Amino acid sequence: MKLDDIGEFGLIEQIRKLVDKEQKKSGRVSVGIGDDTAVVAPPSSGRMLLTTDTMMENVHFNRAYVRGEDIGYKAMAANISDIAAMGGRPDYATVTLGLPRDTEVELIEDIYRGLLDCAGAYGAAIVGGDLTKSPKVFITVSLTGQVLANFARLRSYAKPGDIVMVTGALGGAGAALRGLKAGARPGRGMPRSLFMRYARPTPRLSEGRLAAKMGAHAIQDISDGLLADLRHICRASGHGALIRLDDIPVFPEAARLPGLSKSGALRLALTGGEDYELIITAKPDNADIIKAKVEDDTKTLVTFIGEIMEDGVDVEVVDAEGRAVPQRRAGYDHFTGTNRAK
Amino acid sequence: MKLDDIGEFGLIEQIRKLVDKEQKKSGRVSVGIGDDTAVVAPPSSGRMLLTTDTMMENVHFNRAYVRGEDIGYKAMAANISDIAAMGGRPDYATVTLGLPRDTEVELIEDIYRGLLDCAGAYGAAIVGGDLTKSPKVFITVSLTGQVLANFARLRSYAKPGDIVMVTGALGGAGAALRGLKAGARPGRGMPRSLFMRYARPTPRLSEGRLAAKMGAHAIQDISDGLLADLRHICRASGHGALIRLDDIPVFPEAARLPGLSKSGALRLALTGGEDYELIITAKPDNADIIKAKVEDDTKTLVTFIGEIMEDGVDVEVVDAEGRAVPQRRAGYDHFTGTNRAK
Repeated sequence: MKLDDIGEFGLIEQIRKLVDKEQKKSGRVSVGIGDDTAVVAPPSSGRMLLTTDTMMENVHFNRAYVRGEDIGYKAMAANISDIAAMGGRPDYATVTLGLPRDTEVELIEDIYRGLLDCAGAYGAAIVGGDLTKSPKVFITVSLTGQVLANFARLRSYAKPGDIVMVTGALGGAGAALRGLKAGARPGRGMPRSLFMRYARPTPRLSEGRLAAKMGAHAIQDISDGLLADLRHICRASGHGALIRLDDIPVFPEAARLPGLSKSGALRLALTGGEDYELIITAKPDNADIIKAKVEDDTKTLVTFIGEIMEDGVDVEVVDAEGRAVPQRRAGYDHFTGTNRAK
Repeated sequence: MKLDDIGEFGLIEQIRKLVDKEQKKSGRVSVGIGDDTAVVAPPSSGRMLLTTDTMMENVHFNRAYVRGEDIGYKAMAANISDIAAMGGRPDYATVTLGLPRDTEVELIEDIYRGLLDCAGAYGAAIVGGDLTKSPKVFITVSLTGQVLANFARLRSYAKPGDIVMVTGALGGAGAALRGLKAGARPGRGMPRSLFMRYARPTPRLSEGRLAAKMGAHAIQDISDGLLADLRHICRASGHGALIRLDDIPVFPEAARLPGLSKSGALRLALTGGEDYELIITAKPDNADIIKAKVEDDTKTLVTFIGEIMEDGVDVEVVDAEGRAVPQRRAGYDHFTGTNRAK
């Protein structure tokens, strides 16, 4: 059935039923979907976090590559990743869907299943939303969260001498997208684990909260690419960063993708984006403690890749001999259609 | 200058500067635009409200009819109106802009000026957002608010015997849109006051808060049209509503639009939508008190137009002699492209 058969109000009713069925009732939500606004319990203490992130068809996702459930999951995961990068936890989400009139209702339900799946896994509740006709499918999630007072980890908190570390491994999402564009599909020319890195990213929520609690300085999630996102920390803190090429943890399956060289995989680890891992900076003695604690509690690998430098406001990349390796491509700009420095 | 000249990161910087310049600093916002999330003070007590509303080019607005500032103002006003319909007050907004690559940067700045103008007028702060490439311009505002515990006014709270009243006058926005489509422009075939009803709606924030405080039962804002929105109250409360055609307050300038008859203006008052007035229901003795208090404090007219009925779950419209006047058109459905019952 298509959207123009069921209509706006039929669809709202269908979404409400699906959310009521899939989402556990919770005392913190007094009124969810279906009134002028949602009515919820405010964060009990500390500070409130707010973020929003949009996935637009043919810009952020391609329906030839991913299913509706993946699209929904990733739209929610990107928002939760922002909350993770503050050391917080997510609370309430609203969801706006832009939809062409001939959209299959099944696709919309699949998107919602993915949204609910990810929200449920990380303790967020979908409490409202909006629908609009649109030439292309898009999903805007707005998410609130909370963090203990003074625990929010800002980009500007990085200090000279800090160890720069990253969770997990990088370049997987970028390599998967490259494979998909070249015609590979999960199980056909692409390891399924690699595809999942792109289709269903894992927001590092526990990792971010632990690091914040253990006194990390700056935390930032990697959505645009390691170089671009580390540069955000440099700009905000007024310091430079030095990272060692040989220490970058490259997603293992990335280098096994046909046609992708080892140096190509490394390049994607630096600039590919969408890995949703965390960059964490901390004092050297504290960095050891954070690494041990995060690895112990979450089983997520933490790798030291460099340091924050007193001078400079940019990222310098060095090889095993300490020689500078010039970097040009620093992150994709959707509007100019180019990769450029931020 | 166009967007593809300045780029995503140039635009973000420009928006941040504009928001910093136009928006008063406030202790409640620790971190605004420019980090992973905003960091703000949570609502101090009571319950938190969340809502989101989108304005899509050629669906909700037409750039031939309205300026960027009006588009932004209305996008924020629609969200604040939802908060008003709960008896609450707005706090924090995030703004997502969908933009074609060739969008003039000036248009984007104008949209933001309108957003900031409306937010500032009603005590809301813009604290973050997102940008995405899009075939058409769209604006999604997500807004949080707060309301005293047990003060939220749900649609389901309407009770049999309640007086149904509305703030202000209806049909102005619908008449203005009809005039614009027919080629009229403000000052050229259309009174400026009528145009402003469409381009810069006034969310009835003080009116909603007063009514909630004075013990109103249900409150609902009129975005889809009086009949469609009153039907929401009927469905949610499980009761019918009867309204008297002769008592509907029609926006005075609507009937003076060339080509629009008195009965045509009345029809737009019932079904036109986008007036952003409030429907309020209350016990008869309390209704008099609410009307007097709201009119006294806000200078906004309040008109009794009917009653909530024990039976039925729909809106019945009667003429001066009490005879039923059948209604078919109940609100526009963007996806089916038809007006139909909700």
